[in-house]
Formats: sequence, C-alpha cells, structure tokens
Amino acid sequence: MIVVIKPHTPPDLIAEVIAEVEKLGYTAHTISGALQTVVAAIGDETTHTTLESLNALPQVERVMPVQKRYKLVSRESHPEPTVIDVDGVPVGGSAFAVIAGPCSVESEEQLLTTAHAVKAAGATLLRGGAYKPRTSPYEFQGLGQEGLRLLRLARQETGLKIVTELLSEYDADLVAGTADVLQIGARNSQNFRLLIAAAKTGKPILLKRGLSQRIEEWLLSAEYILSAGNPNVMLCERGIRTFETYTRNTLDLAAVAVAKRESHLPVIVDPSQGCGRADLVPSLCAGAVALGADGLIIEVHPNPAEALSDGQQQVDFKSFGRLMDSLNPFLKVMGRTGKA
Amino acid sequence: MIVVIKPHTPPDLIAEVIAEVEKLGYTAHTISGALQTVVAAIGDETTHTTLESLNALPQVERVMPVQKRYKLVSRESHPEPTVIDVDGVPVGGSAFAVIAGPCSVESEEQLLTTAHAVKAAGATLLRGGAYKPRTSPYEFQGLGQEGLRLLRLARQETGLKIVTELLSEYDADLVAGTADVLQIGARNSQNFRLLIAAAKTGKPILLKRGLSQRIEEWLLSAEYILSAGNPNVMLCERGIRTFETYTRNTLDLAAVAVAKRESHLPVIVDPSQGCGRADLVPSLCAGAVALGADGLIIEVHPNPAEALSDGQQQVDFKSFGRLMDSLNPFLKVMGRTGKA
Amino acid sequence: MIVVIKPHTPPDLIAEVIAEVEKLGYTAHTISGALQTVVAAIGDETTHTTLESLNALPQVERVMPVQKRYKLVSRESHPEPTVIDVDGVPVGGSAFAVIAGPCSVESEEQLLTTAHAVKAAGATLLRGGAYKPRTSPYEFQGLGQEGLRLLRLARQETGLKIVTELLSEYDADLVAGTADVLQIGARNSQNFRLLIAAAKTGKPILLKRGLSQRIEEWLLSAEYILSAGNPNVMLCERGIRTFETYTRNTLDLAAVAVAKRESHLPVIVDPSQGCGRADLVPSLCAGAVALGADGLIIEVHPNPAEALSDGQQQVDFKSFGRLMDSLNPFLKVMGRTGKA
Amino acid sequence: MIVVIKPHTPPDLIAEVIAEVEKLGYTAHTISGALQTVVAAIGDETTHTTLESLNALPQVERVMPVQKRYKLVSRESHPEPTVIDVDGVPVGGSAFAVIAGPCSVESEEQLLTTAHAVKAAGATLLRGGAYKPRTSPYEFQGLGQEGLRLLRLARQETGLKIVTELLSEYDADLVAGTADVLQIGARNSQNFRLLIAAAKTGKPILLKRGLSQRIEEWLLSAEYILSAGNPNVMLCERGIRTFETYTRNTLDLAAVAVAKRESHLPVIVDPSQGCGRADLVPSLCAGAVALGADGLIIEVHPNPAEALSDGQQQVDFKSFGRLMDSLNPFLKVMGRTGKA
Repeated sequence: MIVVIKPHTPPDLIAEVIAEVEKLGYTAHTISGALQTVVAAIGDETTHTTLESLNALPQVERVMPVQKRYKLVSRESHPEPTVIDVDGVPVGGSAFAVIAGPCSVESEEQLLTTAHAVKAAGATLLRGGAYKPRTSPYEFQGLGQEGLRLLRLARQETGLKIVTELLSEYDADLVAGTADVLQIGARNSQNFRLLIAAAKTGKPILLKRGLSQRIEEWLLSAEYILSAGNPNVMLCERGIRTFETYTRNTLDLAAVAVAKRESHLPVIVDPSQGCGRADLVPSLCAGAVALGADGLIIEVHPNPAEALSDGQQQVDFKSFGRLMDSLNPFLKVMGRTGKA
Repeated sequence: MIVVIKPHTPPDLIAEVIAEVEKLGYTAHTISGALQTVVAAIGDETTHTTLESLNALPQVERVMPVQKRYKLVSRESHPEPTVIDVDGVPVGGSAFAVIAGPCSVESEEQLLTTAHAVKAAGATLLRGGAYKPRTSPYEFQGLGQEGLRLLRLARQETGLKIVTELLSEYDADLVAGTADVLQIGARNSQNFRLLIAAAKTGKPILLKRGLSQRIEEWLLSAEYILSAGNPNVMLCERGIRTFETYTRNTLDLAAVAVAKRESHLPVIVDPSQGCGRADLVPSLCAGAVALGADGLIIEVHPNPAEALSDGQQQVDFKSFGRLMDSLNPFLKVMGRTGKA
Repeated sequence: MIVVIKPHTPPDLIAEVIAEVEKLGYTAHTISGALQTVVAAIGDETTHTTLESLNALPQVERVMPVQKRYKLVSRESHPEPTVIDVDGVPVGGSAFAVIAGPCSVESEEQLLTTAHAVKAAGATLLRGGAYKPRTSPYEFQGLGQEGLRLLRLARQETGLKIVTELLSEYDADLVAGTADVLQIGARNSQNFRLLIAAAKTGKPILLKRGLSQRIEEWLLSAEYILSAGNPNVMLCERGIRTFETYTRNTLDLAAVAVAKRESHLPVIVDPSQGCGRADLVPSLCAGAVALGADGLIIEVHPNPAEALSDGQQQVDFKSFGRLMDSLNPFLKVMGRTGKA
Repeated sequence: MIVVIKPHTPPDLIAEVIAEVEKLGYTAHTISGALQTVVAAIGDETTHTTLESLNALPQVERVMPVQKRYKLVSRESHPEPTVIDVDGVPVGGSAFAVIAGPCSVESEEQLLTTAHAVKAAGATLLRGGAYKPRTSPYEFQGLGQEGLRLLRLARQETGLKIVTELLSEYDADLVAGTADVLQIGARNSQNFRLLIAAAKTGKPILLKRGLSQRIEEWLLSAEYILSAGNPNVMLCERGIRTFETYTRNTLDLAAVAVAKRESHLPVIVDPSQGCGRADLVPSLCAGAVALGADGLIIEVHPNPAEALSDGQQQVDFKSFGRLMDSLNPFLKVMGRTGKA
C-alpha cells in the first residue's frame, strides 16, 4: 500500500504513520517528494490487515492499495481458461453455451413448449425461475417446488441442462437437487452467505453481477465461491444501473473483455436483463459474441405479452430461432463451437 | 396503467392491445390524440397483473404505471408518523435517536469503552457488527457469537439498546436473541428472504437502502417486512453509489425528505457509510437533523487508525462528544427530544 | 401528456387542473380510474408548452409526456438511413468508416507518420485535436492554428479527410476552414450555442454523447443541429460516466442499437475514450461492428507512452494494423464495405 | 506519481519504465515489494507532464497521481475563506447570501413582482435567465436582450444585484453589461472557453457543478477562471445525475462540506435544480445551511403552474416567505448574517 502524507506534515507526525504501518506488520519505506512524502508499506496486502484505516489519521491524505485483492479467480493464478462441465455440456474455452428459456416457470405447457423450441434452435441449457426475486411483495413470486418439478420434467423430455435461481440459503439443497447450474441473481451478488451455501452444494454457479457492483467486487464475490471450495463459477454480465432510462440497465460489454483478462472463469452475457427490451436482444447477442463472451442467457416465452414477469424483454420462439441463426457467422469468426 | 400506442398504428392492432388489456382484467379506455392513441387501463394495479409485458407487442411504445406500488408503508394508509418502541426507547415522532458504536465488535475492551463513551455523550442505542459482510473473503468477518455475547454484556453494563446486523436467514433467531434492533445491510436490501426472516423475529428492523436502490424500491423492500406482519421498520439512508470518488458514497439527504413524505416510517441517516470519511461526519449529521431525519447511526471507535474495518469513517470518543454537543441547537430548532 | 391526479382529490381541484390544461391549448380528456383520476391532454407536445409545470399544483402527482420530443432526427420522419458525403467518403448506409489518428496533434512528424500508417491500414479519415479540452488548465491545450496547418498538410499528403474538434464559437470558421468533419466533444454536447455555430458552417458534424447524457437528450442535441439547417450529423457513442473505475467510461453499446432504431443518422463508436485503455480497444471495436455501428474513431499514436495526452488509450501502429485486419471478417458478416 | 509494475516483470522492463519516468523529468525511486515493484516518480505533478501515458506500456499495471491538481482554488494556497464583493453585497465568510427569482425572465410584470417579493422576504440578489439552455430546440429559449433590459429595470427598482446566465462567448460583454454575477450553467461547466471568456469580464462568477462532474473536476473548472485572472468564483452545487428518478437530480450536500474543506471559495446550493420539486426545496435549504453552505439560489415564480420553464421546481411568493422565515433559526445556529 502507498500512504500519502499531507504536505507540510512535521517529521514526528510522519514517524507516527510509519510506526502504525510497522505495527500492522508491513515494512515501511519513506520517499520524500517535491511537495509531499509517501510511505510505501511493503507486505502481502491480501494477508495483512488493510491500511485504509490509517485514513483516520489527520496527517494522512490518502491510502492507495497496490495489489489486487482476488487470487483464486485471477488469470495470474490460473492462466488457462476454465472449462466447466455441466453434466456433459462444456462451458468456457472454445465451447459457446446458449442458455435459454422463460423468465419464470409458469406452467407445464409454457415450460415444455419453450424447452422444445429452444432446443430445436440450438440451446443446450434451459433457464427458468421457480423462485423469483421481485421488487414488490405483490408480484408473482414463482411456482416454487412445483416449478422445480416442471424443470426436472423438461430436462427429462429434452435433455437440456437446467439453470435456475437460488434465493435462499434454506433452499440450497432443494434447488441443487434439480438444478444443473445454480443461478445467483444480481440482487444477491453480495449476499455472501448465499454464495457460500451455493458453493457448498458442489453445483456449478452462474454468478450475476450486482446492479452497481464494480468489476473488482464481482470478482471478489466469485472469490468467495472459489475459496469455499467450488471452482465452477460462470460470471454473468447482466447490465448495470445508470442514469439512462431508455434501457432498463446498461449492458457493460467492456466488462466481458475485462473479466476475461483478469480472470480464467467463463463469462456469460444476459442481454434480456441487460436492456429490458426484446427488440434490442439480437444486436446485443451479436456484440457479446464478438467481444468474446463464452455464452448467452436469453429469455424466451411462447407469448411474451402475457408473461407473468418481464414480458417486455422476452423473445418469442420465432424471434429466437432467427436470433440463433444470425449468431452463427459471428461464432464462426470467433472460432466457437457448441451450438447445434 | 397507460399504454401508449405507436403513431400510425392501424385500428386492428389497437384493438389487439385493448383485447389484451381487458383479458388481464382491466377496463380499457381509448383516447385518440393528435398523433398517437393511448389506452388507459382502469383497475387496481397492485392487485392486477402488470401490463408492462404488453411492451412485447410491436405496436406498443410504452406502458406507464399510474398508481404507487407500496401500500402499507405509505403515508396515505397511515397519515401519522410511526413511533417504534425499542424496549422503552422511542424512535420516530418527536424523539430523536442516536445509535452509535463501532463498525465491528472487536474485543470486550473495545466494545465496553465505546459503549460507555457513547452513552456518556448521549447515545441511547449501541451499534456493533458481530457478523460483517465484507467485499473480500480475506477480510475480517466479525467475531460471530462471541460478538453477540459482548453486545449483551454492553447492554447489561450501560442499558443501551443493541442494533446489530443480520446476515443470514439461518442466524435470524440467534441474532434476534441478542439484538433489540436487527439491521439489514445495504447489500441485502433486496435479499427478500432475509427481509422476511427478519420480519418474523418480531424485532424492530433498521433497513438500509441498497447501493443503487431507487427510493420506490427501498419502500417496497420495507413493504415486504410490513406485509410479513412486522410494522416496526426504520428506513436508513446510507449513501448511494455514484461516479464521485472523493466520498465513498453519495449521501442522498433529499431521500430523507422524500421518504418522510411518502411513508410514515422513521428515517435514520448513516453519515459514516454515507461518506466514508470521519472528517465529514459532523457536517452531515447537522444536515440530516435539519432535513428532518429521525435519528443517526454513527460509527465510533476508541482508535480508528487501528480498527479492523472501516477505520477511516469512524470518529473517536472526543470527536463524538463534540459532535453530539454541536447537534443540540439543531435538535432544538427542529423541536426534537430524545438526546440526554 | 398524461396528468395524474392524486387519490382523493375533490372535483373542484380536478377542474382546476383541467382548466390549466385547456388554458395551455390542449384538449382535456378525463378518465376516472379505480383509485385515481388522470387527465389526458390532447395536442401536439412539440409545439405546445409543456405541462410539466403543472407538477407545481399540489393535487397533481405526476405529468407524463406521451410524444417523442425529437422530429428531424427521428426514423419516423426519415425512414432511410442518412449517408453523409464527407468530401467523397461516404459515412452511413452500407459504408463503414474508420477514423483514426492521434488524440492531439503534437508535431509534424508525429502527425504525418500516423496519417500514413492509418491510411496504410485502411482508415479513410484522420482524427487529431488542434484545440484540446482538458480538465485542468495546466495540461497541454493543443497546438491551435499550427495544429490546423499540420492537419491540412496531412490531408494533402495522404488524401485522408480531416476530423478535428471545435471548442469555441469564435473558432467555427477557422476550424471549418481545415476540417472535413467538425467534432463536438462530450463536454460540449449540450453547449447549444456551439452546436448552432458548428451547424452553420455547413460542415458535417461528429456529435459525441455527453458524459451523462440520456439517449433522448443526445438526439435532441442533434436536433439542434438539424433544426439549424445542417442535416449531416454523425452520432458518436464514447462511453458514459458510471461508478465503474476499471474503465475510464462505460461504453454503452446498446445505445448504438437504440440510436439506429430511433434515428436515421449514422452512429460512430469511440472505443478509445469509451474505455480509456488501449488493451480493450480491439474487443470493443469488434463488438461495435457486430452491434451495427457505422464507423469507429480510434486513437493511434507512434509512441503512446510519450503522448502529450491520453497515451494510455492510444494504440501504436502495429496494434492498429492487427486491429484493422481483425475487423474484416466481422465487417463481412455485417455486409459492410468501405475499408480498403 | 506512483507507477505500479505488474508482478513478475523482468528487470529490463522495469528499467524501461524508469527510463521513461526520468526522460519526462521526474526522479525515479524504485521500491521492490513482496510481490510487486513500484516506481515513485518525484517531481511537481502540476508542472511536469503526467505519467498516465505510461499505462500504455504492457508492464505497467497502474499509474497513481499523488498531488492535487488544483492550486489557486485550494485551501492550502489561501487558508482564509474568500469573501466576494458583489457591488456591495458580500458573499462568503460570515455573510449568507440568498439569490432568488424566476427560472426564466418571462415579462416585466412577472420579473418585477417577483423581485419585490423576494426582496421583501430577505433575498439580496435576483436570479433570472434571459438566455436559457434548453434540452430541446423547441422549448422556450429566453427573452434575450429584452430579458437583460428587464433585469436592469428590476435592479433599478429594488436594488437587488443581478445573477444571470452566460451561454455564449459572443455574449460575454453584453451579459456582463447587465449582470452583477455571471452564472455558468451545469451543462457548460467544462466549456473551458466560456469559463475563460466569463473570467475576462471581471465579474464575479457563479459556477455550477456539471451533471456528472467529480468534485475535483469542478474545482479544476474553477481553477480555469482563477488562472485567467478572476478570483471571484462562487461554487454552486446543484445536484448530480444518478439512477434515482423520484428527484430530478441528487443534491450532493456532502460536496458542500468537501468543497469548503478543499477550497477557500464560497459555496452556494441550488435546491431547485437539485431536486426538481418545489415541495422538497424548504427541507433542502435547511440542510444546506446546517452543512455550511454560504448561500442559496432558489427559483421563485408568481404562478409556477404557468411558468414557461421548470414550473415544478419553482416556489410561489407565499412559500418563499415561509421558507425564508424557517431558515432564520438555522442561520443563527451557524452564526450567519446577511439576511434582512
């Protein structure tokens, strides 16, 4: 860490800073600049206590960390890309994964027709929420266990692997009993206890980025899962919250490139949540492929106008088929396989 | 709801919208404007399915809700301000509550000296985290049950009521066994299952606003707690995430005035998290009082430079004493009581 | 416009709203809903005074505009894409434009070697700032008229068309005497007088989106230029300001798709400003092409580490050549021409 | 500056960085840490070229500036608060200034009745826009020179000093011929040429913070004015753009405390723009006083519902009178004078 001392600080107050730095186990190295002194604190920042509390001293202007805070998820620790085996379906590396299905599981007919349609178009994993986190307590909260049953039925009928959201620590084993991949939603991206509970099921985890989570913090949320013993994390960029109102969120496609540079984990893009408008989904999918995403998670519904949640961002079967066809040439340019 | 139809839409496609509106149980009322048609959908928006899914129809330009989505927390449903009884200490109404204490419980000595100091200065509730949500898994995660024991000890010695954070559904009964007020942190503000678990303990709840939670969404998180049968919610503004980097967060003091206008619940301000810098805390406290806040939650530590978490935003005992004295004249102007 | 009346408003206060609506020239149409009344105000919102001031009435809860505020830039007014003729180089339609060159014009050697390098790699327009808007008055402000002279020299030597920034109304004719395209920077995107002065030169204009400009506002800035008689506007997405700190800005690639849907104007993407890091530029370029951008503006410098401004986001000649080659297959998929 | 080298960089590539640092005139000082090397570059950062371009080198992980970039506006350079003399009315120090008046000058009657009303309530400066920056070209753009004439008339009749906005370099002398204080609007806060043109008139300047301007950047905009020879700048916090939609902007009241700590310039708060809702203005005014603001700029209109611009945020005469009365006890606590 670098501790910047305020200009015109007398030597005894600089000595006080140095003493604190050394008390906390770092080696202090003082550099007197033209106008200001900085104290470089040498030591492993991930194992020592942070020095940021030194900001509490009036003679300290700023404390600047030097090292990265994540280790297990970093490219440095694991230069090769991680390929996750979802019960036979690879995610990451040269494989490109398309996860598709309804926002919420609403009924047997809705789910099964969608599962068959997305499979026919080339998806290999089926999404569908049985437990739904809704902003208002008066909105549809999902079918719960009946939803899980329908997801198992859909897998049995189509062979598609199941991606579904975990909302509660209490449900971890229950949901993991059905899911091939546990999804952690954006609103729970820093619900650290849920991350750990999910990790412990041993299932692969799709970790959505929080609404206003910095990339570093998102990687640290993944670090919670890896450090709890589960290496199978897919990062999922799903749009961040900004001032823009035309789109529901601002899809941060640069974050895909950043996450792939900083980490070995596969990165999935959610264009449906990312913009909240079905008409923009195909363009965003193409952009995500070209930017190097390892997969997409796309909301598909037989009749979006009557969906019980987020109909405005779900595409219908015909649009989904066209969308999948339109991605093929981009996947080819990127050297990607994995789509039927 | 108001459904705005795109310009130049032929009558049969307008009829299709009207049919959907009525299928979902609303009465449709069509208004043909100069350039565009709008369909007003008459019906209670909090009990009917939302029409936002109609955005999926290509002839629909926009769907605009008319009604507010929260009921139990609204001023309309409960014009008088709610006063919460925290085991004899009132929060809300004319009473002004000062919650003070360390960010984390670190040791018996740290907690007890702080408890005595904040009591002497006029605080009536003691804060202190036994379970800490930390961005990185390598940071101090709190003392856990030992922290709870120390909080009970501090209450016994000082009579201060205890405010401490609940991180996990599993711990709800355990933490409620010690806490007089359960705190829900900003990162869990839309962890709806945790909100419900907290509600069911029957303890008053301090609900922090999420990092990028709109005021409407914050009130809806409170609505989850009230609709689960617990009316004792204190809203807590603790700064939102913006582009500014000088401060850790941007304290949204206007949100205090908005929340008190929209809701009957008391509103507490957290200036410590709100700016992340001890030197700004006194000014923000004064501003919060003048803006009508019902209380403050302030981080206080015997030696902030050596704090195990967030030392930079904790004030020491002497500063806290001065701060409390400086608030007296503002409290008097506001006609507030409750500080010793 | 839709004027939402608060619940429980007595009829005389509703009548007051209706009277104001009609006084301002609209036809009022009242709809009594389950809980609330709304007044639909019928009339052309772009020629009538806005009703938003009615929010000043205590019985009004909200005023919601219905119509779009932009006309000349809208797709509705001009369904075909605009193709701008930059002195023989087309921008828009099937043509894809690559604008490349240094952030600032620094010297004859720097500019001419760069011009030759970017031309060899396939760019058709040369960028370079002679007048630089800098956050601090102590930073390099550009070479001014000498910079303009060097840009003319570069055009003469390479045939590349010149894109350079206009900072001041006073300089409009001077800069237009050199520029083939006038650039309006992000910080001037709502400097309406500069927009009008630029429009009046008759030169095509590259209009950058402001740091926190909503898409609607960006289109309205373009509307200023079109309504001042200049139809040749290229919209330029260059990243918006968010909470993320890994990248300098957050490139909003969805805005490309939105702008092309809402408007007939060509849309250019600036990945250099968009992320502020040279290493991310190639991925963002590929994404921009796949998302339907009509061109790119890329910062290129012979030795970025010694650049007088923004070296961290400029690519060197070798990287630029590789980048251009890597875009070819994406351009082919998109059916784009225009690159050598 | 501190240049952080990536882990595992071989010595020759570190030497390359050191060579660049020294080539740019700094003295390099190398510190080898546990995992990483940092190069401290010693030299005055405000007179040397920035090293941020070194980020272009692949072995550089990050460049961190140490010094502050503003000098003339800093508290360090000028420990006493600046008191600006606006033709006899002091702004700053113990004086508290209330600037009030309509958003736009609309007519003689509107302006004069407002001027008399705000004077009677205790304001000492009159605001009113003759040139209005409007998001859409179809909105009311102000009365121009006729508006200036009316402002002069209002000053003659009431003695109130005039605060009015400068939109264009071309108008600098014209507007300065009427104004006692030139206002620079949020959308022009980084229109550096306008800042310089305004500075050169010699009139005091009210500099609004940009919609998404960091505090450091706002101070640097002020630095442009001071370094152009005009020391009379009032900083004006007017709300920043965030994701919140209930209020038009998010008033950053902490920025008042920060600006007063970092700079000697007076800080004015604009609650009208800051929230965009007249009903919140009184609370925000009280908060601003308690937080240490040196003045307020408040929009007042005889009939806000019929205002030609921003009626929703303007208060009427009666509300303004009550508001002014309500501020008195807060001003007394703060030891402020200046209100009648």
